[in-house]
Amino acid sequence: MLQELFTPSVQHALELVGIFVFAISGALLAVRKNFDVFGMAVLAEVTALGGGLLRDLIIGAVPPAAFTDLGYFVTPLVATGLVFFLHPHVERIQVAVNVFDAAGLGLFCVSGATKAYEYGLGLTASATLGLATAVGGGVLRDVLANEVPSLLRWDRDLYAVPAMVGATMVVLCIRFDVLNPFTSGLAAVTAFLLRLLAMRYHWRAPRAWNRRSEASEDEHKATA
Amino acid sequence: MLQELFTPSVQHALELVGIFVFAISGALLAVRKNFDVFGMAVLAEVTALGGGLLRDLIIGAVPPAAFTDLGYFVTPLVATGLVFFLHPHVERIQVAVNVFDAAGLGLFCVSGATKAYEYGLGLTASATLGLATAVGGGVLRDVLANEVPSLLRWDRDLYAVPAMVGATMVVLCIRFDVLNPFTSGLAAVTAFLLRLLAMRYHWRAPRAWNRRSEASEDEHKATA
Amino acid sequence: MLQELFTPSVQHALELVGIFVFAISGALLAVRKNFDVFGMAVLAEVTALGGGLLRDLIIGAVPPAAFTDLGYFVTPLVATGLVFFLHPHVERIQVAVNVFDAAGLGLFCVSGATKAYEYGLGLTASATLGLATAVGGGVLRDVLANEVPSLLRWDRDLYAVPAMVGATMVVLCIRFDVLNPFTSGLAAVTAFLLRLLAMRYHWRAPRAWNRRSEASEDEHKATA
Repeated sequence: MLQELFTPSVQHALELVGIFVFAISGALLAVRKNFDVFGMAVLAEVTALGGGLLRDLIIGAVPPAAFTDLGYFVTPLVATGLVFFLHPHVERIQVAVNVFDAAGLGLFCVSGATKAYEYGLGLTASATLGLATAVGGGVLRDVLANEVPSLLRWDRDLYAVPAMVGATMVVLCIRFDVLNPFTSGLAAVTAFLLRLLAMRYHWRAPRAWNRRSEASEDEHKATA
Repeated sequence: MLQELFTPSVQHALELVGIFVFAISGALLAVRKNFDVFGMAVLAEVTALGGGLLRDLIIGAVPPAAFTDLGYFVTPLVATGLVFFLHPHVERIQVAVNVFDAAGLGLFCVSGATKAYEYGLGLTASATLGLATAVGGGVLRDVLANEVPSLLRWDRDLYAVPAMVGATMVVLCIRFDVLNPFTSGLAAVTAFLLRLLAMRYHWRAPRAWNRRSEASEDEHKATA
Repeated sequence: MLQELFTPSVQHALELVGIFVFAISGALLAVRKNFDVFGMAVLAEVTALGGGLLRDLIIGAVPPAAFTDLGYFVTPLVATGLVFFLHPHVERIQVAVNVFDAAGLGLFCVSGATKAYEYGLGLTASATLGLATAVGGGVLRDVLANEVPSLLRWDRDLYAVPAMVGATMVVLCIRFDVLNPFTSGLAAVTAFLLRLLAMRYHWRAPRAWNRRSEASEDEHKATA
């Protein structure tokens, strides 16, 4: 089954699923920020395609896939339409969205790292670009919406780490010459499951030493 | 007359006009945000050249025109100087600025789509990049000024749609092989007039279904 | 001594120092914004490498140096670790950080302008890219942290001007064919010293005409 997972057409279909769910998260944030339907479409496109766009600019793959594959462009518009008409339902199924988003994360960290290596980057750089592909769209989404990127906030469940693990698995497989559809799939599934576990058990990353005490001082100042 | 409109030198002059008025809007925002004169210059440059820069990076036209044409670089500095010394007057003539900005919008959506197609992108991608060229600078301006991009806000008159219409007209003309100075000019003028009408009659785009009721809930929470 | 300053290995070491101190400033901002350790690492990397990344994308040097030189990538992580465990001490030595940051500024405006010229850009464009290399990372840092870029704020000591002077000195040396390790070093040292003086004497740039009176009006509105 996993072998089949990475025939070109199936992989393309999976990428479209990832793009779709990322786009849903962008459109939903636009609704929360009270943007109009065009703002929703812009945020959906940026969230879904921004990470890959960044990667393609950096590795010199121009024009980026986001601008050569019509399916990549149209999918976020479909997501926008869905959110536009159904967003109370879409918000209600937030759990499902989170699961799909985790799937997108797993998929993109693997495909991003693989593509970067194919374009001649080193192993560390490929892993970094896998991570950037997976999380870049969400960061751009939050920057455009004028919010602190949820990637950076300590009060959110781990998001970068699962993608980091998946991308690192890919480059380790490359290093030891065992990258194949099965190991690729394993890396994607690992990232996916780690993210699900992080959400389930609210795994968080530590802040800098002694931070808590100072944070309460900050609150003090804020209320003063 | 429109034939003449697109001889290289006249087109260049028109682009400089577009750059100039976009730069004015950037410098004015910098004044409102209380930035110093260098902040004004940065915001003027970014607003005027950001959209084209983004397009050139994506289509692989490096170094981008913004860095090879001295006139493109100097024009925003002139605009900055003008706003620096005259900004109460410049703000008073906001109507004129808006009209010029609309002209810039019309011009850039056409030149952006045309250049993207010349670099081998497909029709949909070319239209998208025409739109990105026209609105990208303004989005970067707002992001740097730490504001929600006015492009995305529902309470602003339609801005993206006129550019979208202009860029779409261009790619349709390409598709049916009738792109010439006259039809290019027609697309630019159409976008220009649509933007003027949107401002005159406060055309706005809808927000997602049921949004209004929830917005008032939000206000509730905010005041609570 | 200055001759030695620009042998490849010494220059590389100096660039790593610049990257390190820029990364410190990114990690410290992350601590102040209450980000977790991964947010600190992201902000450190972006601050340290963002300016050079931007330059490399614009001049078409892909993959950018940030992704081909492992030392460039690892240095910000070391800075993150240091801030993570020692940040109260790092903040206490803010003066030292500022001095190093000024050194990074001087170094990057020179190396940025030089590299841009080597890639075929004109003199004005090279000077601009020298400036962008030196200040770009800090702007990206502030945008990601959802703050108004300190580069643009009038109430901060001059930061862009020293880099502008340094980059301009480089292109003037190129223009008059006297660019050598000594003049390069002189440009870097000039930018460095100007920045130190700007901090020591709180040099600031003027805001637009009549701005002060309106600023107090703004405060009025804010308190109303």
